[in-house]
Amino acid sequence: MIIVLEKGISDEKIENVIRHLEDYGFTVHKSTGEEQIILGAIGIQPNFDTRKIKILEGVSAVYRVTEPFRLASRGYQKENTKIKIGDVVIGSNDVVTIAGPCAVESEEQIMTIAKIIKEGGAKILRGGAFKPRTSPYSFQGLGEDGLKLLRKAGDEFGLAVITEVMDPGQVELVAKYADIFQLGARNMQNFPLLRELGKTNKPVMIKRGMSATIDEWLMSAEYILASGNKDVMVCERGIRTFETSTRNTFDLSAIPVIHKKSHLPIIADPSHAVGIRDKVIPMARAAVAAGADGLMVEVHHDPADALSDGPQALLPEQFFELMDQVKKIAEIIGRKA
Amino acid sequence: MIIVLEKGISDEKIENVIRHLEDYGFTVHKSTGEEQIILGAIGIQPNFDTRKIKILEGVSAVYRVTEPFRLASRGYQKENTKIKIGDVVIGSNDVVTIAGPCAVESEEQIMTIAKIIKEGGAKILRGGAFKPRTSPYSFQGLGEDGLKLLRKAGDEFGLAVITEVMDPGQVELVAKYADIFQLGARNMQNFPLLRELGKTNKPVMIKRGMSATIDEWLMSAEYILASGNKDVMVCERGIRTFETSTRNTFDLSAIPVIHKKSHLPIIADPSHAVGIRDKVIPMARAAVAAGADGLMVEVHHDPADALSDGPQALLPEQFFELMDQVKKIAEIIGRKA
Amino acid sequence: MIIVLEKGISDEKIENVIRHLEDYGFTVHKSTGEEQIILGAIGIQPNFDTRKIKILEGVSAVYRVTEPFRLASRGYQKENTKIKIGDVVIGSNDVVTIAGPCAVESEEQIMTIAKIIKEGGAKILRGGAFKPRTSPYSFQGLGEDGLKLLRKAGDEFGLAVITEVMDPGQVELVAKYADIFQLGARNMQNFPLLRELGKTNKPVMIKRGMSATIDEWLMSAEYILASGNKDVMVCERGIRTFETSTRNTFDLSAIPVIHKKSHLPIIADPSHAVGIRDKVIPMARAAVAAGADGLMVEVHHDPADALSDGPQALLPEQFFELMDQVKKIAEIIGRKA
Amino acid sequence: MIIVLEKGISDEKIENVIRHLEDYGFTVHKSTGEEQIILGAIGIQPNFDTRKIKILEGVSAVYRVTEPFRLASRGYQKENTKIKIGDVVIGSNDVVTIAGPCAVESEEQIMTIAKIIKEGGAKILRGGAFKPRTSPYSFQGLGEDGLKLLRKAGDEFGLAVITEVMDPGQVELVAKYADIFQLGARNMQNFPLLRELGKTNKPVMIKRGMSATIDEWLMSAEYILASGNKDVMVCERGIRTFETSTRNTFDLSAIPVIHKKSHLPIIADPSHAVGIRDKVIPMARAAVAAGADGLMVEVHHDPADALSDGPQALLPEQFFELMDQVKKIAEIIGRKA
Repeated sequence: MIIVLEKGISDEKIENVIRHLEDYGFTVHKSTGEEQIILGAIGIQPNFDTRKIKILEGVSAVYRVTEPFRLASRGYQKENTKIKIGDVVIGSNDVVTIAGPCAVESEEQIMTIAKIIKEGGAKILRGGAFKPRTSPYSFQGLGEDGLKLLRKAGDEFGLAVITEVMDPGQVELVAKYADIFQLGARNMQNFPLLRELGKTNKPVMIKRGMSATIDEWLMSAEYILASGNKDVMVCERGIRTFETSTRNTFDLSAIPVIHKKSHLPIIADPSHAVGIRDKVIPMARAAVAAGADGLMVEVHHDPADALSDGPQALLPEQFFELMDQVKKIAEIIGRKA
Repeated sequence: MIIVLEKGISDEKIENVIRHLEDYGFTVHKSTGEEQIILGAIGIQPNFDTRKIKILEGVSAVYRVTEPFRLASRGYQKENTKIKIGDVVIGSNDVVTIAGPCAVESEEQIMTIAKIIKEGGAKILRGGAFKPRTSPYSFQGLGEDGLKLLRKAGDEFGLAVITEVMDPGQVELVAKYADIFQLGARNMQNFPLLRELGKTNKPVMIKRGMSATIDEWLMSAEYILASGNKDVMVCERGIRTFETSTRNTFDLSAIPVIHKKSHLPIIADPSHAVGIRDKVIPMARAAVAAGADGLMVEVHHDPADALSDGPQALLPEQFFELMDQVKKIAEIIGRKA
Repeated sequence: MIIVLEKGISDEKIENVIRHLEDYGFTVHKSTGEEQIILGAIGIQPNFDTRKIKILEGVSAVYRVTEPFRLASRGYQKENTKIKIGDVVIGSNDVVTIAGPCAVESEEQIMTIAKIIKEGGAKILRGGAFKPRTSPYSFQGLGEDGLKLLRKAGDEFGLAVITEVMDPGQVELVAKYADIFQLGARNMQNFPLLRELGKTNKPVMIKRGMSATIDEWLMSAEYILASGNKDVMVCERGIRTFETSTRNTFDLSAIPVIHKKSHLPIIADPSHAVGIRDKVIPMARAAVAAGADGLMVEVHHDPADALSDGPQALLPEQFFELMDQVKKIAEIIGRKA
Repeated sequence: MIIVLEKGISDEKIENVIRHLEDYGFTVHKSTGEEQIILGAIGIQPNFDTRKIKILEGVSAVYRVTEPFRLASRGYQKENTKIKIGDVVIGSNDVVTIAGPCAVESEEQIMTIAKIIKEGGAKILRGGAFKPRTSPYSFQGLGEDGLKLLRKAGDEFGLAVITEVMDPGQVELVAKYADIFQLGARNMQNFPLLRELGKTNKPVMIKRGMSATIDEWLMSAEYILASGNKDVMVCERGIRTFETSTRNTFDLSAIPVIHKKSHLPIIADPSHAVGIRDKVIPMARAAVAAGADGLMVEVHHDPADALSDGPQALLPEQFFELMDQVKKIAEIIGRKA
């Protein structure tokens, strides 16, 4: 932590700031410049509330110089985290595609779509059984029946399956059927749920909260890592900004930023980010070009009748064309899709 | 729902759009102008996904013309909702103050602070027992022991008590001790928790999510109202913007906006919004001048040693001065504090 | 400037960073902690691009510890800047009201409104002659004729006058008629215009850009101060956020923040911030309660026929009532309106 | 324009709203549903202030159904605008690269860099002569000398040249040397400058304002188009959001959105968006994958000593590698770079 003192601060006030820092357990270094005095406070206190120093008299500014997360940082682990689910390895040189409908609606629906995505080259099947809906009057998912259908479709077509869990009380149930837990954007800071997921031994994909900074996102990963589960990946799905032409603003720069700050794999979900089918394709290509470790896209054979988010689902032929382009783009940057 | 068609659209395409609308159960009215044709689709479908129409050929734009919430709207209930907790009525002409520490830390602490806030004129004691913390390494609250101490302090000084609940599994426990449930900003869209709170018979205060629009905030209220609990109030606590000089941007305009759109009371929490003590006081005054139905402020007799958020807590003498100013400002606008 | 080095950095790389800093003219202090080495680089280079250091190998983070502005800072000048225009002093204990129509439309209009605002207690008359309009097809203002009418109305009723200048080429013309230059939000970073205004000897009010941080806003003030004109005030008028219920989000916390960082007076303009008349009044009261040094409100005797921004203009009776409340609120916080 | 009336509105109030609309020149259609009455107001008034209707009694909501721009819309012109500068055509199937230093610093510098970018395959040379700087103390550019050097380098290597113009008074001077005018993000709503550029016969590239919506951006294009200059292109360079890990948030979704709404070409500038060299390359690739009509990147042979924005400039070998990847990605989507 760095403390910048006000110009012309009295010796007494400097002493007071140093005493406080030492009381909080820091070792203090003082640098005296021509114009300004700066204190460096060293000591491992990742959660120290810097405002405690900021409110002392004579303090001009306080900077935290260590990242608030530790286990999630590239400094802690240099090599990329590789998450193995059967034959699939996320975080490797492969660009892995997760595809499927927004929600599991029926056996026929999930079987039909699983077949399509397998054909297109996806490795993991997505499909919601518990749906977070902003309206209490909307379709809320099939619950356990949905989980069973998802599992059945995965087994039938040799696909791993991922589905959302919304509540600590659901973790055990979901674990019976899914290979990967999806933590939704609205639950990114649901701390009881994060802790519960940390106790499982299945991979977790954390969607970025709509207004979460990259550091906060990695702090949520830290919760799971600190509880003992090392298989964490993150998923960019758009942030909320002033622009309303798209559902969210797809922050693709997060891909190189995460790769620099952390060893965790990053997936990109253009379907939720832009919300309309014809913009999903260019954004999916862009995500792979930007270095994403995986793609998550919604696919539906009959989107006009989908119970949820139909307008953002790709049609089968669009999905095949996209997968073809994605393979070629991955190759250009030395990866495999 | 209003559908604006593209200029020069063919009759066939118009028919196709109308047929889709009718299939979805809408009654359609067509208005033909010199330049453009507009369709009005009427029918009660609050959750219809307008993108289903937006993706049809020849459609230029689609507008939802009904608010997504119903029970929370001023149209549904003209008179203000009044929430009674003992002698206190929130949503009346009174401006009610909720005060206390960020977290319950010890019996001595909560008793000392309860005495101070009672003296200052607050009616409700706040204090967290379960704390949502962005870091897994931070103080997480005293749990049930904290709830007991909070209750004891409330009873001793004749104050109602409010505390945060973070998990559907905690609702029953918290209900044993608290008079009002606080739903934190990070849980504003925790739908299982909202549904659980809807089944209780105690008032709920919903803090605005950091990136929640006012309509989404009222949709969260709708969840609780739709589950049968009518005693809902909302609490503005700052939104996330590009400005970083304050912890959040305190959106005081939300006060008149909520009063226009909804019959639910609105409380203002300047402590979390601005995050530093010396800015809490002017913002608290401003909130009352803007018409807030209540204030929520953090007070601590020894903020330097507070385990959580000390720097934003008011000192006792600051709190007394603020309460004095608040009373006078309330009077100017014909209210009582 | 503070440079945080990566853990385990080699001595060679440390030397390289230090050499670069010294080449750029800084004096370097090194603090070695258990886990991390921190460098303090001291030297007066307000505009040094910190990324030049951030890209060096072994550098983990770089923090600028001095504010980018100097003349505008409270550190440079402890006492509030007081701007005198005739009998009016902005930045004193008085809360000064600026009122008038959005645009000067006719002699009758400006005379009628000037009379009303004088009666209500305003000291300064506003009215646009050159209007910045997002559409090329909108009313663009009366130009010099508007300036003449504004001056005439000000002289007739003993009011100072303020009006917007949009272009360096207009400065001389506007200076002939106005007492105060208004720099619009869209021109906050029009640097040629800032420089030109710095050469005049009339006060300038800088509206905050829609996406300007408080520091950038003060940097614009710095441009004028550095060019020799000391009479600068700033005006909060709302920032752009994700919330669309109001035209902009009125950032009232900027008032205590500016008062802490700078000696310049701050005016609040609720009319542009919220954009609808019935929300202007509570927000105007809130601004005074938050400590604004002045208010700017739009008033129109016939807003339904106003050529610009009629819906946000207060009716005369609303203005009188507001002024009455403002006087009382100012008194509560020890000021005079 | 669509007007949604309040439920249970009286006939008298309906008549009043209709009368106002007709007075403003609209033709009104009334649709009466079970629950709600909707009015459609038809008539060509692109700049009508919808708040004039919103404030009438009994009005619940007002929607503008026509886009505020006309000449810039895809509805007005179906085919893409193609801008020819010598042999280069922007807006065609070619993906055009604009490259060069942030600022022209010396003859040696601009000649060296022009040679490099020519070799890499760029068609247009960029370089600032007048620099918009947030600080009055920063390097402000070489002025006319810079323009002369830029022209000389362009001529020497057969490259068109683009440079920023900041002030209506500079337009004539810049036109003497440049092939394309660049309008900076901070000047996107500098209306006098937009009008002046509309009177020239040289292409204009409009950078998106940091907080400009896509519609506002196209409105700025509309200003130039309406003044008679048809050669307008837009340039995405990042928007301001809450995320601070990158300089701005690069809104790549704007590319498919602009292509749908408008016929104008869109260029992507990853250098300003992300601000650090190592993130520029993946974002440049992503922009081409997303369908950009051109790229603008900063290149410098000696970025450590660049007078402005050195840290975001690509090194020559990075530029060559990027150009190679860009060519291959363009091919995958059926274009040529």
